Amino acid sequence: MKKVLILFLFIATYSFAQETNIADDKKAIITLLTAQKDAWNNYDIETFMEGYWKSEELKFYGAGGVIKGWQSTLERYKKSYPTKEHFGKLRFVFNDISKINDGAYSVMGEYHLTRKVGNTNGIFMLILKQINGEWKVIADTSAKVN
Amino acid sequence: MKKVLILFLFIATYSFAQETNIADDKKAIITLLTAQKDAWNNYDIETFMEGYWKSEELKFYGAGGVIKGWQSTLERYKKSYPTKEHFGKLRFVFNDISKINDGAYSVMGEYHLTRKVGNTNGIFMLILKQINGEWKVIADTSAKVN
Repeated sequence: MKKVLILFLFIATYSFAQETNIADDKKAIITLLTAQKDAWNNYDIETFMEGYWKSEELKFYGAGGVIKGWQSTLERYKKSYPTKEHFGKLRFVFNDISKINDGAYSVMGEYHLTRKVGNTNGIFMLILKQINGEWKVIADTSAKVN
Repeated sequence: MKKVLILFLFIATYSFAQETNIADDKKAIITLLTAQKDAWNNYDIETFMEGYWKSEELKFYGAGGVIKGWQSTLERYKKSYPTKEHFGKLRFVFNDISKINDGAYSVMGEYHLTRKVGNTNGIFMLILKQINGEWKVIADTSAKVN
């Protein structure tokens, strides 16, 4: 009986620790993406890009095809958003954050850009991975909805 | 010297085994998605749905929002594609398949539907996970491009 109780407590503690870890991971991911949004709204592309994995293996996928690598992703942003007016005011909506497995999550969300040069809205799915203790976006698929 | 050689051979063998595993994983994933496409083209939604994780945790994300669960995803397909004419002829293009970490991959691709009721084209990003030895789509984000 005592053994069963110990086992039960062990499982309960383990489950609780898992849930807590997931809550912490989600919080850290939201913090990262919020920092990206704030950087965007400060017209600070360098800080915005810190949310992405600085690797040749980063992937950005949109209507223009797959862009590979951090540097190419930065250049795409600079080309697509050439001025402060093109940056506009960014708002994110997070519709789902799910654990894929240890150290990897997916985020499904919406982006809403309010701009004088024309508003634009779309959806995205991100894959984030914990690299050297920091969460980084390793894959980003974004598509305009209107 | 001998120790260095053994270490070198060990690392080379390990790297080779890793590469082979990735090649095998990608092959298995392409086989699964090709089976899905073939099922679609046979107007066989049941076999098509076998590619998805049969779980309440499956996520399908499109312009209509996040749909959670295998059953709700099936219902969405039945609603969006009510007849054989709506199914049409499906073609996939795989633009990138990348390992996220052990047991998880992302796939970035295009779908092209040729139909009498109007063609439709879009992009998708899938997350696949190996569950009980089988690859399953656990998250699917799809967006029309035209």
